[in-house]
Amino acid sequence: MLSFVNDYSETACPEILQRICGLGDSKTNGYGEDPYSESAKEKIRRAIDCPEADIYFLVGGTQTNATVLDAILGKAEGVIAADSGHISIHEAGAVELLGHKVLTLPGKDGKIDAESLETYCTEFLAEPTHDHMVWPGAVYLSQPTELGTLYTKSELQKIRELCLRFDLKLYLDGARLGYALASEGNDLFLPDVARLTDAFYIGGTKQGALMGEAVVFPSGAPKHFFSVMKQHGALLAKGFLLGLQFDTLFTDGLYVKLSKNAVACAKRLRDIFTGKGYRLSPATVSNQSFIVLTDAEAEELSQKAAFSYWGPYDGEGSVYRFVCGVTTKPEDVEKLGGLL
Amino acid sequence: MLSFVNDYSETACPEILQRICGLGDSKTNGYGEDPYSESAKEKIRRAIDCPEADIYFLVGGTQTNATVLDAILGKAEGVIAADSGHISIHEAGAVELLGHKVLTLPGKDGKIDAESLETYCTEFLAEPTHDHMVWPGAVYLSQPTELGTLYTKSELQKIRELCLRFDLKLYLDGARLGYALASEGNDLFLPDVARLTDAFYIGGTKQGALMGEAVVFPSGAPKHFFSVMKQHGALLAKGFLLGLQFDTLFTDGLYVKLSKNAVACAKRLRDIFTGKGYRLSPATVSNQSFIVLTDAEAEELSQKAAFSYWGPYDGEGSVYRFVCGVTTKPEDVEKLGGLL
Amino acid sequence: MLSFVNDYSETACPEILQRICGLGDSKTNGYGEDPYSESAKEKIRRAIDCPEADIYFLVGGTQTNATVLDAILGKAEGVIAADSGHISIHEAGAVELLGHKVLTLPGKDGKIDAESLETYCTEFLAEPTHDHMVWPGAVYLSQPTELGTLYTKSELQKIRELCLRFDLKLYLDGARLGYALASEGNDLFLPDVARLTDAFYIGGTKQGALMGEAVVFPSGAPKHFFSVMKQHGALLAKGFLLGLQFDTLFTDGLYVKLSKNAVACAKRLRDIFTGKGYRLSPATVSNQSFIVLTDAEAEELSQKAAFSYWGPYDGEGSVYRFVCGVTTKPEDVEKLGGLL
Amino acid sequence: MLSFVNDYSETACPEILQRICGLGDSKTNGYGEDPYSESAKEKIRRAIDCPEADIYFLVGGTQTNATVLDAILGKAEGVIAADSGHISIHEAGAVELLGHKVLTLPGKDGKIDAESLETYCTEFLAEPTHDHMVWPGAVYLSQPTELGTLYTKSELQKIRELCLRFDLKLYLDGARLGYALASEGNDLFLPDVARLTDAFYIGGTKQGALMGEAVVFPSGAPKHFFSVMKQHGALLAKGFLLGLQFDTLFTDGLYVKLSKNAVACAKRLRDIFTGKGYRLSPATVSNQSFIVLTDAEAEELSQKAAFSYWGPYDGEGSVYRFVCGVTTKPEDVEKLGGLL
Repeated sequence: MLSFVNDYSETACPEILQRICGLGDSKTNGYGEDPYSESAKEKIRRAIDCPEADIYFLVGGTQTNATVLDAILGKAEGVIAADSGHISIHEAGAVELLGHKVLTLPGKDGKIDAESLETYCTEFLAEPTHDHMVWPGAVYLSQPTELGTLYTKSELQKIRELCLRFDLKLYLDGARLGYALASEGNDLFLPDVARLTDAFYIGGTKQGALMGEAVVFPSGAPKHFFSVMKQHGALLAKGFLLGLQFDTLFTDGLYVKLSKNAVACAKRLRDIFTGKGYRLSPATVSNQSFIVLTDAEAEELSQKAAFSYWGPYDGEGSVYRFVCGVTTKPEDVEKLGGLL
Repeated sequence: MLSFVNDYSETACPEILQRICGLGDSKTNGYGEDPYSESAKEKIRRAIDCPEADIYFLVGGTQTNATVLDAILGKAEGVIAADSGHISIHEAGAVELLGHKVLTLPGKDGKIDAESLETYCTEFLAEPTHDHMVWPGAVYLSQPTELGTLYTKSELQKIRELCLRFDLKLYLDGARLGYALASEGNDLFLPDVARLTDAFYIGGTKQGALMGEAVVFPSGAPKHFFSVMKQHGALLAKGFLLGLQFDTLFTDGLYVKLSKNAVACAKRLRDIFTGKGYRLSPATVSNQSFIVLTDAEAEELSQKAAFSYWGPYDGEGSVYRFVCGVTTKPEDVEKLGGLL
Repeated sequence: MLSFVNDYSETACPEILQRICGLGDSKTNGYGEDPYSESAKEKIRRAIDCPEADIYFLVGGTQTNATVLDAILGKAEGVIAADSGHISIHEAGAVELLGHKVLTLPGKDGKIDAESLETYCTEFLAEPTHDHMVWPGAVYLSQPTELGTLYTKSELQKIRELCLRFDLKLYLDGARLGYALASEGNDLFLPDVARLTDAFYIGGTKQGALMGEAVVFPSGAPKHFFSVMKQHGALLAKGFLLGLQFDTLFTDGLYVKLSKNAVACAKRLRDIFTGKGYRLSPATVSNQSFIVLTDAEAEELSQKAAFSYWGPYDGEGSVYRFVCGVTTKPEDVEKLGGLL
Repeated sequence: MLSFVNDYSETACPEILQRICGLGDSKTNGYGEDPYSESAKEKIRRAIDCPEADIYFLVGGTQTNATVLDAILGKAEGVIAADSGHISIHEAGAVELLGHKVLTLPGKDGKIDAESLETYCTEFLAEPTHDHMVWPGAVYLSQPTELGTLYTKSELQKIRELCLRFDLKLYLDGARLGYALASEGNDLFLPDVARLTDAFYIGGTKQGALMGEAVVFPSGAPKHFFSVMKQHGALLAKGFLLGLQFDTLFTDGLYVKLSKNAVACAKRLRDIFTGKGYRLSPATVSNQSFIVLTDAEAEELSQKAAFSYWGPYDGEGSVYRFVCGVTTKPEDVEKLGGLL
């Protein structure tokens, strides 16, 4: 059956599997203190144009968000996120588990806009009892967002300025960052992200790796960050497996190349749907597509293709999500079109 | 160079790599809800002779210990562990991060003995101010211990009886459980462990897998355990990778077969050392060997073989650790012997 | 200057001060294990008609909410509260500090209604990914609410039924419970609260005591609750001071008598305002009154009386809060009227 | 019956009760933002000779220790304490509840000595795997210690130097600090404590107040400390009650005067015991006395005087604790002597 369920349903791209198998029975230092990790970090530093960056490899997204936010937030501080943000809903309270409140702002197509952020912070400071409230200590963005939309460079710059004005750290969740980089019209590239944030991660799990996320601290890691990872259970014994995978992804532009395929497939998929009169909600440029289907249409299509219910639609039908990943085949997209 | 540094310095056993690569571009459900995981769980249930057991796959040992202990400990409860226990020292306070104190007992060659446990609990209850103290809520054991020693079935039974008497959960850290199972003289097998504990894990990372630990709750998992995993950042998106690896390890007795090789190599290694007059400290039957070397001996040997400094010795020299793993080659052990 | 700023700006009612001073240099056991606490508990058990209740005395409201919620919530569980709930906003994230998310529902004049609670729980269970979300584990209500409104017995019954249906604990914050009990039209009395909740507290701090809140567990306290209090820093060394105060408040109906004065003053205050054409927002029957004033009116009145800005009003002017407490003098209310 | 059970079994010294009652029905701002608190802070700043100090009033000792340590410890950091330290044993894991491990050193008569502290830190840094361990981030001392012994100025200076060398915060628990100040031979006064620590508290609860501890940050409070207090449930609504009490204690040297009485009584009590051939264990100069009694002696004495069992003695008999407080009457000590 055709599958557009998500981008973490396969093993890894062949280049990565090849390199892992190629290690044979060679022995490597544990806990990320190995030459593959070093090499991967160097390549990432070059790709983000930030030679001073501290880089660490963690295993998964929720783990990464919780560990980094716990490390950068101060006492009595929470993190501002869109109400559709992954940490707001789908991480089972991982941020709260470590003692930090997620302060939600209504998102616009999944994005925080600078204006509502400014209002929030201004009103917080103006509120006479704000010392009895959770201090905003950081802003959490995802690029692309959970709804597949993108921040522009100008939008991120405005948010960054507000963060500097209101003494907030800026953290960007890049679980699918490659897809954003490869999207049509995107103008926010890795060096921009490194210049404008305090921390971000480059996702591997949903971008062709078996698992792994590369956390980047452009201006240096928080104190004892290695131990913080260990304390959060986020330090992989065979850390070299993560280094090796990122080393592969950042060799010869593989990371972007893989992402481009996914995004191109997704674009084609949306063109096919809209060409046949279907609506998008929201319109996206990234690897995720949100299509409005009636119950009957969804029911019928689901006989031959896997995709997922996303939520209600303001109008007839519901929203369904179709995801293309690094290994999605263009011919499968055409086959899907043939089913409509 | 010969390496006996640890048992997590290689990728995985060939059988596992083969199966991962064999998945090709087939698509599988995420988060452990896949047929490989189901199959692995069934095989483990058979191996431990406990058809009712709930089983979950996590990524690493520290993560597993912290997640399980947080799930089974009640409010105001801590966990009793040997002072040499992994959670007591080398997990960077992961148990405390979640609010639980590690209550240490002096270990004997890495083991808690029933007598000192009984004394601790009896004195705790007799202490008039014990309501102002951390309640013991669980006991943490590791099999084999961090010093490579083993609990016997009779020892575990005695500890279990005390746990029942004092209302303590019993949790066993099996990061290297396979090596214990394969050790000469071991009389504590998987069905015993399942019968005598509330939770334990069967280690994968140090036993031939890329990564992964199988948590077993013989009498059923704590409420919402899946969500607890997610909240701890311990839920792998591509959970099928863990299921597939354990399915492989528990097919045709591979788990024990691999372990046997390591233990046999370790035994031969110890025989070689003791045959040449070296001392062991402590004496072990598992895959880890602790050898007393003088500084000069260690210095010289380290030119041609990698191993690690372990700690001081009560006498001349220091203790060094030599680890054999699932892929250790018997001929490498002989080569090491040739260097002495 | 006249003051209607809040109900915790004075020491304590004369009866309490008298008894404290009356202790002289007599010596009493610490940590709440004293005859005054025992006597107070007995009187409260009679007042709530629940002879089996476990009762503990804590010092303040935020401390009580955080300690009790931490004790009754399970792992991966959060607490449902109105968005205007004290724990949602003005406790600086005390619930999150212990690892639990506050799940907010839009309140109606400060109250959760059964319908929106049912919808929330139904949708949560229907959501396919709910295992990746925070489980609702308890419901937090305040009586009177932060806006001075009251739950009726029928409303609480409906919420209780939903709690039973959806396996939620029900906790009621009674920081100002006495004022609710004394309010016109109130039909929810202490025995009802005891019958319909899993835990609640009877506020002392804002009800005539120096400090102190009496936590009631009608069906028995959570395991090790005394130690949980100690661990949260919520166990007062001189616990007899709390017991003595509640013993006084629950002697000869003092608790209700004091509350009645406050509520009567508040009613008179509202009558005076509305008699002169001012609006209430929301309309309340409790000891807090929310009056709409223009900036000019507020500015002028604040020269001679202290009260506090509460928030914007949907119309001309803003909302200001006037609080009457156990020691508010009826003549001061008349004087305030004279200033309008 | 004569009572020497503890120093928190009475209400408060008459001067404090008088001032509280003297407030009458005057209305005062809540949460410590009142003139009494301001005045108390000024008087404390003068007493400690540190005009820049930030000062906050909390309610109890465990709460204060947990709140301050949570505020000054960084991520992945624990606090070093003597194994007999209050936070090590008798605070039910309050420090761990907030995620920080208590790292215990064997105390000498309740004190940490500089040498063992230096060894601990040196060995920690020398340990190759220390990044997998909890970082020492602060040192916790109590003055007097839980065993009634005192640090000298020179001892505190040595510990301070080590803290500076190893990047550790220094925190001093002064639950009974007044008794130390008043003790014979003490050479460590408030300005010394302020000069040599990062944070300490001046105890009120056990020193003549109803309740209350004054936390001092000589070089300024941690960021958002007021909100941190609120988040920990450590912010008293009627904070003026705390301010007023400390204002009283720091007027006309009352704090020291009260302490001197207790210490003089304790000295006389010890002289009586030793004069009759009893042994002390340990020997103390503070308000707590530890006397060795046989079971028969203890049994007989307990018919007419209350005191408490402390622990076993290395020899015949057990250790019993006799505490004198601010209101202990010299004639009661003589009466006790008459019973021997």
